[in-house]
Amino acid sequence: MNSDIKNIAIIGLGLIGSSILHALKVKHNNQYKTYAYDINEKYRSIIKKMDISYKVCNKISEAVKNADLIILAIPVGSMGKVAKDINPHVKKGTIIIDTGSTKISVIKDVTPFIPDHSFYIPSHPLAGTEHSGPESGFSSLFENRYWIIISAKKNSNTKLIEKFFIKLGAVVDYMNAEYHDKIMAMTSHLPHLIAFTIVGTANQLEKDLKNDVVRYSATGFRDFTRLASSDPTMWRDVFTNNSDSVLEMLQRFNEDLTYLQKLIRQKNGTKLYNFFKNTKIIRSRIIDAGQHELEDVKK
Amino acid sequence: MNSDIKNIAIIGLGLIGSSILHALKVKHNNQYKTYAYDINEKYRSIIKKMDISYKVCNKISEAVKNADLIILAIPVGSMGKVAKDINPHVKKGTIIIDTGSTKISVIKDVTPFIPDHSFYIPSHPLAGTEHSGPESGFSSLFENRYWIIISAKKNSNTKLIEKFFIKLGAVVDYMNAEYHDKIMAMTSHLPHLIAFTIVGTANQLEKDLKNDVVRYSATGFRDFTRLASSDPTMWRDVFTNNSDSVLEMLQRFNEDLTYLQKLIRQKNGTKLYNFFKNTKIIRSRIIDAGQHELEDVKK
Repeated sequence: MNSDIKNIAIIGLGLIGSSILHALKVKHNNQYKTYAYDINEKYRSIIKKMDISYKVCNKISEAVKNADLIILAIPVGSMGKVAKDINPHVKKGTIIIDTGSTKISVIKDVTPFIPDHSFYIPSHPLAGTEHSGPESGFSSLFENRYWIIISAKKNSNTKLIEKFFIKLGAVVDYMNAEYHDKIMAMTSHLPHLIAFTIVGTANQLEKDLKNDVVRYSATGFRDFTRLASSDPTMWRDVFTNNSDSVLEMLQRFNEDLTYLQKLIRQKNGTKLYNFFKNTKIIRSRIIDAGQHELEDVKK
Repeated sequence: MNSDIKNIAIIGLGLIGSSILHALKVKHNNQYKTYAYDINEKYRSIIKKMDISYKVCNKISEAVKNADLIILAIPVGSMGKVAKDINPHVKKGTIIIDTGSTKISVIKDVTPFIPDHSFYIPSHPLAGTEHSGPESGFSSLFENRYWIIISAKKNSNTKLIEKFFIKLGAVVDYMNAEYHDKIMAMTSHLPHLIAFTIVGTANQLEKDLKNDVVRYSATGFRDFTRLASSDPTMWRDVFTNNSDSVLEMLQRFNEDLTYLQKLIRQKNGTKLYNFFKNTKIIRSRIIDAGQHELEDVKK
């Protein structure tokens, strides 16, 4: 265990990785030395040009060898491979965290490659936009957003990481991996799947209709297109790595959709009205919880 | 045909009706005399207190008897009944328009009750918020929004109405009822149905999960709750009155969802990636078309 964090390796320079760099630079200049790496050479040179990292490394081993904290901010499907790659270069006492959107699969993939002399803390910042890549990051991305730590109990390492997340502006919650994957399936993965689907459906319409879907998109359709323009690589990995929970929630959704479909076919106005009346309540609860205020934090 | 419009009856004082009153007051004070009516006594007294109508009438016959233009801004399921109610009181040469979200059904319901000496022009303002009732209206609701006129060809009456809609801030498009109902099924009705469904699904979760869906709603789920909090009466009527087109679009959606469901079960990353990559394109087209700019016009 390190009593303090000084050198930080950021592996993956997409939206999350670059936002961590921005946040550290804006809020804590000089307090940390950041070593940035991405497998994509173009991403590395963009970050270099932006001058938001103490160092941009051309090799992953360089980035991690002196790190007190290693942050894996890469698609969940790559976590196992990258954990394996860094394994020989991790120094004693280093804390390794990941920022992946699925937790059961990432823990399963990463844990075998964590050296005995270091510590792994799975985590997930509930922050993002529909944009991706090193130019999409910004310093306030984590401001007032939840950052989940997957740990059954707090210890000196989780406390250190909790402090670090709070420094980035986040609000920290603890839960286990199973619950995380289930709740994210409902609040994030299923909504994205539905959004991808309906936008895909529109995309297959005849040309005239498709043009007019764009033209008149403000009537409802547009609300889905933001989610459906999210990073395809990230979401491919999320759905293949949290398939059990997603399919469970999707089954529930399908049952409800079939129920409404039948009511529409039967023109059963009374039951449709009752269903719609109940859904209003959830919106009020979101407004009461202040969650409607955290609208798209932009640069 | 009237060469000019002076007296306007607004029947229905919800979001659309009250917004028309606000817009006429703000933009064209004294140019028009408005006669407001709603079947709901409470709505009438709210509008009276707001002092945004030349007159608020306690009887529908009073409101329409001197009108050069009658605007039916009521749920589509009530259009036929109200058209019947006003029939004996409509003066010669009056133009009657409706603002309903479905057009085939409204035209079918209203047309039999239009006196031979007056003119019916079906229309639909593509403007709204998730709020409803007389207090939800505001003067800029129609600003830069499309207002569809259902008419095969322009004549002096449609031109007069087009001018009127433009005065309210709207952009006018013409189409036929069949095409309107089909395109709205895809851009508005299906998205609302999907949103109602997923919020309904979340609403049925066990208590702890449901609380956390609200807590973590910013990760995607929240994007659906706005649509799902729209007026239940309006949407009950939309789905029962445009069932054919909605069920057709829903069938296409279901085919795509089943396809993605199968890919998730098979963990077919390549095909998932390809599907998600294509949906990004539609978002870019919406941004190119400037439709992402017309964000939630608020008071």
